[in-house]
Amino acid sequence: MKALRYQNQEVSVAEIDRPIANGEALVRVTLSGICNTDLEIARGYAGFEGTLGHEFVGVDEGGQRVVGEINAGCGLCDLCRAGDSRHCPSRTVLGIVGRDGAHAEFLQLPAVNLLPVPPEISDEHAVFTEPLAAACGILERVSITNETKVAVIGDGKLGLLCAQVIATTGAPVMLIGKHPNKLHIAERRGIETLLLEEAKRRAREFDVVVEASGSPGGFDLALDLLHPRGVLVLKSTFHGLTEINSARIVVDEISVVGSRCGRFAPALELLRAGKIDVENLISDEFTLADGLRAMDRAAQSGVMKVLLRP
Amino acid sequence: MKALRYQNQEVSVAEIDRPIANGEALVRVTLSGICNTDLEIARGYAGFEGTLGHEFVGVDEGGQRVVGEINAGCGLCDLCRAGDSRHCPSRTVLGIVGRDGAHAEFLQLPAVNLLPVPPEISDEHAVFTEPLAAACGILERVSITNETKVAVIGDGKLGLLCAQVIATTGAPVMLIGKHPNKLHIAERRGIETLLLEEAKRRAREFDVVVEASGSPGGFDLALDLLHPRGVLVLKSTFHGLTEINSARIVVDEISVVGSRCGRFAPALELLRAGKIDVENLISDEFTLADGLRAMDRAAQSGVMKVLLRP
Repeated sequence: MKALRYQNQEVSVAEIDRPIANGEALVRVTLSGICNTDLEIARGYAGFEGTLGHEFVGVDEGGQRVVGEINAGCGLCDLCRAGDSRHCPSRTVLGIVGRDGAHAEFLQLPAVNLLPVPPEISDEHAVFTEPLAAACGILERVSITNETKVAVIGDGKLGLLCAQVIATTGAPVMLIGKHPNKLHIAERRGIETLLLEEAKRRAREFDVVVEASGSPGGFDLALDLLHPRGVLVLKSTFHGLTEINSARIVVDEISVVGSRCGRFAPALELLRAGKIDVENLISDEFTLADGLRAMDRAAQSGVMKVLLRP
Repeated sequence: MKALRYQNQEVSVAEIDRPIANGEALVRVTLSGICNTDLEIARGYAGFEGTLGHEFVGVDEGGQRVVGEINAGCGLCDLCRAGDSRHCPSRTVLGIVGRDGAHAEFLQLPAVNLLPVPPEISDEHAVFTEPLAAACGILERVSITNETKVAVIGDGKLGLLCAQVIATTGAPVMLIGKHPNKLHIAERRGIETLLLEEAKRRAREFDVVVEASGSPGGFDLALDLLHPRGVLVLKSTFHGLTEINSARIVVDEISVVGSRCGRFAPALELLRAGKIDVENLISDEFTLADGLRAMDRAAQSGVMKVLLRP
């Protein structure tokens, strides 16, 4: 089968054997999405080699449309037994850690990881379940009520999902970015927006700031925007070191809270209810055979979600 | 009067006018303590100029022995009205921000900042109220119970105070440092200790890690020691930028929590009850006139608290 792979520091579309499943579920991929993490991996982040991709919708061997949580735990540790393998120390992660990913004709995952896709959700929307769940994960890590003043930095696809998810709590949300056309997607959902160059004027106004720009400058801006004892949610993973002024964290008693993966069920429910605009986050679609061009396209400035169809 | 000052990038003992009080309380300083922050200020941290020092015990104009909270708020903002000026945006801070400090014969502070010292506490112990309150401040920022596994990195005076304060909650505490003689102070109080070179073996064992070493390496070690979703308390302020691998904070969903000043009342109560060994944290005492030598001594490796007597 075809698969988009990263090996020997090179990305290529290769012909490889179909997975054997081996006690796990076999899924025929219908559509997969390119995440910035895929681009980071192709730059050496996380030291992964194999088939890229962790955002997908597919069909299982029973003909059921499914999406799948990407962390596969050992099943035996306390965390896995409590039903949450996201921090299992010996986990594999689809297309990120020790497990071939979703930019392929087929993938395998533990059956327990798969969730059926409600009929109301199209494939083009269902493929957003994983990144939307990651946005929902913020609400597991920080208490946000309809009185919490929140800013989201970054108007890329991650920032747009985070802003929309947080807005569902009733909290006043401000999305900060560089691209009027992207900010407009949030505005159409009733979310206030602000151009990056004007953000400095809003110093010390926010209770919670989500850094979803993936740029080191986003960290400093977030510290500017927070009032003392505010919470900075770090949502982007990026390769390399960030220089921070740790004295600011101490003096203003800021909390910096890392947030990675979320649960799929709340994300599917939001998609089913039509509460999140994902349609306008799709920039382009390529065939899997054209995966290299798709990766190049996804890396271009201003481009949002690029989909791959096997 | 004599005062130890930092001005034009130089520390000196100068003769200056006695403060006029001007609606505030005038305190004759009996003893002051040199904090690492004083040393950082003398390297340009915080851009402060004036009389150094914020740890003191003294006598007010009514003859009462007093210690004093170091943040002087505007008295008008919501924070100040709620009785907590520590984050008042227009605050001054004794010997740190816009207000002459405690390494002097006299100082002035708002009367509301002063607390009487119970007779059971000697001057030599009372002068530790401010740094001990800072250690107590951790308990305002992080929930610690007798089941929370805590590590404190740094066996300097700050680390020793933090470890002892946290131990009062019943939590199992491990103090990590380089100096067997300093670790021994904690051991005598029933606190487990570990040499820094052995700490790497304890990866992912702790719920909460307090970084009190003030060295950038402490940040990385703290990330190693925490299990996923653990809490890293940043206690040291130091000048300059720290390079961090922010992806680790995201992937392991760590919370990094800044902690600065604490309230004085709990610290005075701990000192009164003899629950904290501060006696063994005193390395040396100098006269205020000898302040330059005292600063040099405080900057030497292995030296703990250096006191100044006007």
